[in-house]
Amino acid sequence: MIKPRTPPGVLELLPREQVAFQRMLDTIRRTFEAWGFLPVETPVFELSEVLLTKTGGETERQVYFVQSTGALEKAAAGGADAGPPELALRFDLTVPLARYVAEHEHELAFPFRRYQMQRVYRGERAQRGRFREFYQCDIDVIGKDTLSPRYEAEVPAVINAVFEALGIGEFTIQLNHRKLLRGFFAGQGIDEAAQPLVLREIDKLDKRGEEAVRATLEGEGFGLSPEVAERLLAFSRIRSSGHDDALAKLDALDPGTPLFEEGRSELRALLAALKALGVPGSRYAINLSIARGLDYYTGMVYETTLDANPDIGSICSGGRYDDLAGHYTKSKLPGVGISIGLTRLFWQLREAGLVQVADSPVDVLVALFDDAGLDDALAVSQRLRAAGLKVETQLEARKLGKQFQYADRAGIRHVVVRGGDEIARGAATVKDLRSGEQFEVAIDALADALLARRGPAAVGGDAMPASTEGDPR
Amino acid sequence: MIKPRTPPGVLELLPREQVAFQRMLDTIRRTFEAWGFLPVETPVFELSEVLLTKTGGETERQVYFVQSTGALEKAAAGGADAGPPELALRFDLTVPLARYVAEHEHELAFPFRRYQMQRVYRGERAQRGRFREFYQCDIDVIGKDTLSPRYEAEVPAVINAVFEALGIGEFTIQLNHRKLLRGFFAGQGIDEAAQPLVLREIDKLDKRGEEAVRATLEGEGFGLSPEVAERLLAFSRIRSSGHDDALAKLDALDPGTPLFEEGRSELRALLAALKALGVPGSRYAINLSIARGLDYYTGMVYETTLDANPDIGSICSGGRYDDLAGHYTKSKLPGVGISIGLTRLFWQLREAGLVQVADSPVDVLVALFDDAGLDDALAVSQRLRAAGLKVETQLEARKLGKQFQYADRAGIRHVVVRGGDEIARGAATVKDLRSGEQFEVAIDALADALLARRGPAAVGGDAMPASTEGDPR
Repeated sequence: MIKPRTPPGVLELLPREQVAFQRMLDTIRRTFEAWGFLPVETPVFELSEVLLTKTGGETERQVYFVQSTGALEKAAAGGADAGPPELALRFDLTVPLARYVAEHEHELAFPFRRYQMQRVYRGERAQRGRFREFYQCDIDVIGKDTLSPRYEAEVPAVINAVFEALGIGEFTIQLNHRKLLRGFFAGQGIDEAAQPLVLREIDKLDKRGEEAVRATLEGEGFGLSPEVAERLLAFSRIRSSGHDDALAKLDALDPGTPLFEEGRSELRALLAALKALGVPGSRYAINLSIARGLDYYTGMVYETTLDANPDIGSICSGGRYDDLAGHYTKSKLPGVGISIGLTRLFWQLREAGLVQVADSPVDVLVALFDDAGLDDALAVSQRLRAAGLKVETQLEARKLGKQFQYADRAGIRHVVVRGGDEIARGAATVKDLRSGEQFEVAIDALADALLARRGPAAVGGDAMPASTEGDPR
Repeated sequence: MIKPRTPPGVLELLPREQVAFQRMLDTIRRTFEAWGFLPVETPVFELSEVLLTKTGGETERQVYFVQSTGALEKAAAGGADAGPPELALRFDLTVPLARYVAEHEHELAFPFRRYQMQRVYRGERAQRGRFREFYQCDIDVIGKDTLSPRYEAEVPAVINAVFEALGIGEFTIQLNHRKLLRGFFAGQGIDEAAQPLVLREIDKLDKRGEEAVRATLEGEGFGLSPEVAERLLAFSRIRSSGHDDALAKLDALDPGTPLFEEGRSELRALLAALKALGVPGSRYAINLSIARGLDYYTGMVYETTLDANPDIGSICSGGRYDDLAGHYTKSKLPGVGISIGLTRLFWQLREAGLVQVADSPVDVLVALFDDAGLDDALAVSQRLRAAGLKVETQLEARKLGKQFQYADRAGIRHVVVRGGDEIARGAATVKDLRSGEQFEVAIDALADALLARRGPAAVGGDAMPASTEGDPR
């Protein structure tokens, strides 16, 4: 006998949790489609040579390799000379997107708007809340040669629509612009080569605190003067509150380099677009400390935090980049995208007691009163299904109490009972397990009665209060 | 520069194909839920020790193992002594189900009805139409200790509902019963030990033909007399056509062993249940040659074929088993289930020219006439989204012709244009790229006009003509 268990670092859900998770997936998908994004799915594994274009990064250390039995045997026979495994599991959805767009470049219409919601794999250290397998829900808009900054303005509106639809509490989309940052750095005499390193330090403000970062900036490696370090920190402290304040904070910045002014003007245009799109001013804020470690962002960067749980960190992050697929194609493919790490978000909501175990998607259990009633129970079930209800039929005549108990455990709210008396009267008894209510209804009116009692929750995308941790896209 | 390409043996779809595939997944999911099944998802990898409980089978040869970079290095250092990799990719959804039910036994309500729609992995020989990664869409009903044969009767009704909803052409659910087969074999003097081997031969009738199978049965290994071999073959030839004929064919069988009579009576009850459930009699047939190689089936077995493409083999198969999880638990967990190999089915439909590239799920492109119109285009888009439409906004003012061309390529049927004149008049121009039609509508009536033109197809689960190959569940 082998002990049945999952590998460490995965989140496996019970059916009613899975229902809640599936509703979140559905809500996100519906919202992505409402904004004109098309679905893409890629294989779970890629050729190692294709996936691992860069070398030696932290991410590469976390890659899982895949080998068939035959390849393993060959490797064992050939020793160390066998070379690295041919296949590797994707560790994000961005590299597969780059490969996909480069591979299918001539078959796609640009700007190419795709969403992708699949699991990714990282050999994380085993630790509570760290997952080796987790869902990412990504959107990206990819241009051919060029992509207007206006697509960067649309992204926060999509983020707003997604989290409004998820109903996991109020949230703020934190906005910053790489050109603003880099222009400001240049104005302070920090050269191109040092800028990414300074960015990385700014990115640590939340974790290390201001004094530690100040010490590093003034220390040997950087050697910034206390005045410059203070100006950097003061700049990073800038936050806005509401739409007008965001504009005012932008206006209040001293004039800077041309790059800085380009960033400022793009941010202004973004604020105008968000207003035109009807995004509430309370949902976005300028936060000049947002750096997003990755070097490849070149324009807007986004992070999203839950107002009631800022400690959780970003639940949706991303930004603008100018070179998606330079490893695979000579075409210039700029883009902008975001990612939601849904597995971690769901786990954190559940930890915080903010995920309700969902009711079953099944609306009704048709009970079996006695064996003679089987054909009737089947026919009634079919009639309810034809009306659009989700129906389970009890096929073994157990005690009614047992059948109610089963429905309750399975999360099915309504039980329909038809004993001989009810059949003779052309009626059915409905028991609502949530309210305890019980009533009789004519068989012809049964489907409508049950449909009327089905809450909007059954449609999916229902409200669910919330909390979560940063998703390193 | 690295050539962007997928590994061999995977099916990666272009966005509009993915839309068609996603609609099939949605339709199957909706139907499974309508019949009271709950969603389960399991990790893509399992512990090798847990996944590979049996040894030496063909399936085991096809397993993919998963190793982190660290584990690979350790294996390289430790040589052959390092032991087998800790993780392996699932090769079907049945073993993970067994592990899941055994692991969560005390948290589940029985009978446990689950559906699971995920990809599985097999190191198949590279070959056209053979996939190393493919979707399976499974349902199973698992009982604790016992499970009434009535659940076996419900399964063909679910198969009927799924393929009716998919709309890929008329189909027939082929029915057989292991007790009938085994009872008949016993009646012919074939002992328990030889029965699985005879079953396997009967299973090859389609591929090898009757004469080859007869020669094997009469040959050295089996040594059946020509009379017995002929009786087996005659039995295997029995097919019914329609509900009444199925009953008649059952009645016409000679009386047999108690096991045989049990099978016959369960099949009769199944036919009655299918009638009560309203399944058309043309959709199911008794076919006593259906054996389903796997040894673990103990009751009903099912295969489903497309009437217009019988050569494709079974597109949905399964059966009744009595011991789901004997490797993991002492509890007896009998069940019944089926599996649809959707990737292969989709591929075959496409090969046969029977999959239409779907329209985009996006209903409308709001064009951008000139830069001055940006705020208006954004606001109009939001208004349409609020009405439930899926909307992409053109954010760069390109020539209108280019914008139409883009919409056409992306599969978006309607384009909305608002130039200065239309804005002044409080109107919008709608161009239908499918019909070529163009008309003006008041801005307040725009959403309704577009909603009215949206076909039922956009709801998903639309008809799609068909064909496919056997799914070895």
